[in-house]
Amino acid sequence: MKALILLGCPETPAQTPMAVYVFNKLTKMGYDTTIAANPAASKLVKISDPEGLYNLNLIDLERTLGEINEGDYDLLVGFVHKDAAASFFVTFDQILNTKSIALVFSRDADEVAEFVNMIEESGSKALISAVRAFHNPSPIKVKFDKAIKEFE
Amino acid sequence: MKALILLGCPETPAQTPMAVYVFNKLTKMGYDTTIAANPAASKLVKISDPEGLYNLNLIDLERTLGEINEGDYDLLVGFVHKDAAASFFVTFDQILNTKSIALVFSRDADEVAEFVNMIEESGSKALISAVRAFHNPSPIKVKFDKAIKEFE
Repeated sequence: MKALILLGCPETPAQTPMAVYVFNKLTKMGYDTTIAANPAASKLVKISDPEGLYNLNLIDLERTLGEINEGDYDLLVGFVHKDAAASFFVTFDQILNTKSIALVFSRDADEVAEFVNMIEESGSKALISAVRAFHNPSPIKVKFDKAIKEFE
Repeated sequence: MKALILLGCPETPAQTPMAVYVFNKLTKMGYDTTIAANPAASKLVKISDPEGLYNLNLIDLERTLGEINEGDYDLLVGFVHKDAAASFFVTFDQILNTKSIALVFSRDADEVAEFVNMIEESGSKALISAVRAFHNPSPIKVKFDKAIKEFE
């Protein structure tokens, strides 16, 4: 089983810690897990595991988009906290056409609603886990833990 | 030898990854290292090491401030990217009266200058390592690596 985690832009302080958390959780569930991120988001993840103890497997987001096909992954988990991240999620979700979870969060409730709409209007069958949060990662963690249980 | 790392508010995405990086670096240098942070900043650090592989030693910032005395730590490293963080750094620096490094960063060059001034005007003898940075941690990492060499 293979899982792909999509990171958005690195502006939000909760993303990097949650990326390690989600990677570790999926790995423990038996998924061969990969994180796709832009260069800045990748750097943050790498620095947060300076000894490489979590064996984080990072790949370039843009390059991955040009190469993936349906069937390459069995599970998609996307961090959606910007328009661009919502667009990336929808695109990967359509290509992979597999189980998927969108972790939608923003400090702004209207943005949360907007990103949820973008995903729903794409016709995605993703499990959308949406919460108002910015620098406190706990609500996002709780939502993710609940969402991933659906796939256990 | 004991080292204390001070975290500021959790708004900046580079802080949590750099906190783990600095903790790991100081620990490898032989320091018994502690991170003092407010509850939200602490949560971010904890989630970024979900298996506790780095043995991060976190304590409450406010409580620590009420309890520390000169001689409790041999090295102070502070993340300074807000007014409040600069004030905390200056206060801890004055109490501990030991070797110290201020990692000053902001996406705004004027803020960087302002925080540097706040520290200098306090009469601090801290090594001030200042850089314009926000979500790319590399400039902060490079500055820290250079600063810590002075204490090796």
